[in-house]
Amino acid sequence: MELTTVKDALNIILNNSENFGIEEVDFINSVGRVLKENIVADRDFPPFNRVSMDGIAISSEAFNKGQRAFKIEGIQAAGSPQLTLKNPANCIEAMTGAVLPNNTDVVIQYELLEIKNGIATVHLDAVKSFQNVHLKGLDRKEKDVLIVKNTLISAAEIGVFATVGKSTIKVAKQPKVMIVSTGNELVEVAKIPAEHQIRRSNVFTLVSLLEKLHIKADTAHILDDKKTLETKIASFLNNYDVLLFSGAVSKGKFDFIPEVLANLGVEKLFHKVKQRPGKPFWFGKKAITKQDKNNKIVFAFPGNPVSTFVSCLKYFYPWYYKSVGLSFENNKQGILSEDFYFKPNLTYFLQVKLAQNEGKLYATPIAGKGSGDLANLVDSDAFLELPDNRSNFIKGEVFPLINYR
Amino acid sequence: MELTTVKDALNIILNNSENFGIEEVDFINSVGRVLKENIVADRDFPPFNRVSMDGIAISSEAFNKGQRAFKIEGIQAAGSPQLTLKNPANCIEAMTGAVLPNNTDVVIQYELLEIKNGIATVHLDAVKSFQNVHLKGLDRKEKDVLIVKNTLISAAEIGVFATVGKSTIKVAKQPKVMIVSTGNELVEVAKIPAEHQIRRSNVFTLVSLLEKLHIKADTAHILDDKKTLETKIASFLNNYDVLLFSGAVSKGKFDFIPEVLANLGVEKLFHKVKQRPGKPFWFGKKAITKQDKNNKIVFAFPGNPVSTFVSCLKYFYPWYYKSVGLSFENNKQGILSEDFYFKPNLTYFLQVKLAQNEGKLYATPIAGKGSGDLANLVDSDAFLELPDNRSNFIKGEVFPLINYR
Repeated sequence: MELTTVKDALNIILNNSENFGIEEVDFINSVGRVLKENIVADRDFPPFNRVSMDGIAISSEAFNKGQRAFKIEGIQAAGSPQLTLKNPANCIEAMTGAVLPNNTDVVIQYELLEIKNGIATVHLDAVKSFQNVHLKGLDRKEKDVLIVKNTLISAAEIGVFATVGKSTIKVAKQPKVMIVSTGNELVEVAKIPAEHQIRRSNVFTLVSLLEKLHIKADTAHILDDKKTLETKIASFLNNYDVLLFSGAVSKGKFDFIPEVLANLGVEKLFHKVKQRPGKPFWFGKKAITKQDKNNKIVFAFPGNPVSTFVSCLKYFYPWYYKSVGLSFENNKQGILSEDFYFKPNLTYFLQVKLAQNEGKLYATPIAGKGSGDLANLVDSDAFLELPDNRSNFIKGEVFPLINYR
Repeated sequence: MELTTVKDALNIILNNSENFGIEEVDFINSVGRVLKENIVADRDFPPFNRVSMDGIAISSEAFNKGQRAFKIEGIQAAGSPQLTLKNPANCIEAMTGAVLPNNTDVVIQYELLEIKNGIATVHLDAVKSFQNVHLKGLDRKEKDVLIVKNTLISAAEIGVFATVGKSTIKVAKQPKVMIVSTGNELVEVAKIPAEHQIRRSNVFTLVSLLEKLHIKADTAHILDDKKTLETKIASFLNNYDVLLFSGAVSKGKFDFIPEVLANLGVEKLFHKVKQRPGKPFWFGKKAITKQDKNNKIVFAFPGNPVSTFVSCLKYFYPWYYKSVGLSFENNKQGILSEDFYFKPNLTYFLQVKLAQNEGKLYATPIAGKGSGDLANLVDSDAFLELPDNRSNFIKGEVFPLINYR
C-alpha cells in the first residue's frame, strides 16, 4: 500500500477542520481560549488627563512668569472628581492616577519640591506643558480595536478585558473529544499487571496534551472484541465531535479499528503515513448531512507511546488550531547540534533536548529505543522533523521543531 | 534614596524563597506541578520480550536450516499469557504488543509472508535473532530512576507515572497567595466607571499570570484608608503565605502600603528598584518564629499595569521556581532586530514582538506609551532586559528575554 507523505497527511487533516461555533465565558476563565470578537476601547485610554507622578499640579503660565512658590489649595486624589485650581498662582497636590485638576497643565514631582507651611517651592528652571501628565486618549482612542478576533488569550488580554469592562467574552467553542484506548494487554494504572500485561498510559498522555489546549477530554477503554467496539464507537460517534484512538490500526489479527470504523460509516481519508514513529496512523471522517451539525473526525493513532505522542502534536494540534480559527503556524525551528544518520525513506521525528544560547535554539538528539520507549520522552523536550528524502543530517542544519515543554 | 539594582533585587528575593512542603495529588492532575519524589521503574521496560510487528514468531534455528514454510500452531495475542511453540518447525502468529512465544526468537512481519491453508511461507534470505522483538529491559531496567525529583511535570511525565502505576504523586505544595489591589479610583469590571475612575484590571492579570504556575490565588480590593488597610492586611498575613499588592507604594499622600506593612511587622528588604517600568517596587517579609511555619512574603508592585506585569514575571516567577525547588534558570535570550535608544540610567524592560527564523529568536521593539499602556502588552510577546549602564542598543545584540506567551 502506498504511504501518505507527512505533508499530504497534514494537508488532508487541515482540509477537514471543523467550526464548532462560539460560546460566552467569564473573562477570567478565558485564558488559553481563542477570542471570537474584536475588543474595542469603551472610552479613551487614559480616559482623562492622568497625573503620572505624585507632586503638585500648577499652571505653566504662572511658572513661566517667574513664580516658584505656590500656595497649596487642596489635594487631588486618585478616584476623586476633578478639582479646579481657583487661583492660578496657587497649586493643588496631585497623586498618581488622579485627574489633572482644571486650570493646571504641569505636574512637578515631590522629589523637586520643598513644602513648608502650606507653600510648595519649586527648584526648577523650566517646565514643559503637560509634563508628568499622561494625556487623555494618548494610548488608545475610544472605539479603537484593542484586541482582534482570533487572538489566543493570555494574561495580557485578561487585563484589557477588565479595563474595557468585558466581564464575559466570546470564544471558540471547544470540540467534544473522546479518547479511546484498545487492547487486551492493558490494565488500569492502580492495578498490578500480570507478566504479559502493561498499564494504560497513552490515554492519559493524550488527556494531558489536550489539556494544554484547554480541552477537557473523556476517556474510555474497549477490549479487542469487534462487536463491543462497534457498539461503543457508534455511541461515541453520536456523542462526540472527535474521537482519538490509540492502537489497533496496524496489521494485527485484532486490529479491528479500521474495519469497525468503515462499518460505522467513517470514511478513511488516509491510512499509513511515511513517517517514523507512527506509520500506521489512520485518519477519517463521518459526514453529517444535517446542516446544523459537524462532521465527526477520527484520529486513530498507533498504539506505541511515542507514536501517539508525536502524532497528536504534529496532526491533532494544527487541526485544532485551524478549527478554532487560530492563525497559527508552527514556524519553530531548531539547529541540529550534532550529525545524525537515519536511513529509511521516512520522515523521522527525532527526539531532541533543547538548549538556548545567544538567541539560538540548539537541538541535541536523545537516542531512544524506538516508538515504545515512553521514558525517553521524559529526557527530551521536542521532536526535530527530519525530511524523508535524505539520510545524513549535518550539525548546524536547521529543521522544523515540535516542542512539547 | 539609593535605588536597588535589578540584580540585587532579584538576589534578595531569591534568598527569601520559602519551602511550602509536599502534598500528594492524583497523577492526572499533576501537570504543571513540581515532582517531589524520584519515579522508579517497577519492572523492566519492556517487561517481557515484546513483539514489535504483526506477523509470525519462529525459531531462527529452523530458518537457518533452510526451512521457509511454517505451519501455524496458534495465535499469540497482546494481553494473553505466553504461548509455547511446541514443534520448532512450526510458527505462532504473534501480534504487536504480545509476549514473544516460548521457543521462538524471530518475528517476521505479515508484509514478508504468504499465508495459505494454515502454512506461512517466508520470502527472506536471512533473519537476525530477535528481529522485530523489543527485548525485555532494553529501554529501562527495574529500579532505574525514570524521572528525577524536582522535574516540572508535563504530558510526557504523565505517561510514565501511568506506566509504573503511580496513581498518586508527591508534588511541591503551592503557596497560598492573596492578590490585593488598592486605590479609590478603581471600580469593578462589570461597572461603568465615572469620569475620574477606571476599572480594576491588575489583579486579574496577576491571577492569570499565577494560574500559569498552577497557583489559584485569591483577590481583594481595599480602599485608600489606613485603618482598613491595617485590619485587612493583618488578616491576610495570618491566612496566606504570600501577598501581592498592586499600587500605593510610591510617594503619594495615600500610598499607605509601606507604612502599613511596617506597622504590621513586615520587614522592608528593599524599596525602589533601578528599573523602568516598576521603579517603586517594594519587597519584604514577616519572619515567623515558630519552627513549623513559613515567613510571610510581600511583593508590593507599583500600580501601573505594565509595571505590575513585568515585575511579576521578573521577580515573582523566579521566587516561586526556587521555592518549589525547580532548577530553573531563565537563560532565554532574544536578538534585537533594530537599534534602540534609552537614556535613563535604569534597567529597561523593553516590550518586544518575537519572530523565529532559522532557529534564531528576533525581538522587535513595540513602542508603548509607558507603564500605563496596558493595551500595548497585547501587541507584544515579551520583554527584552536592557542593562542600566548604556543608552545605545544595537541591532543584532543579544539580551535576556522574559517571554509571556
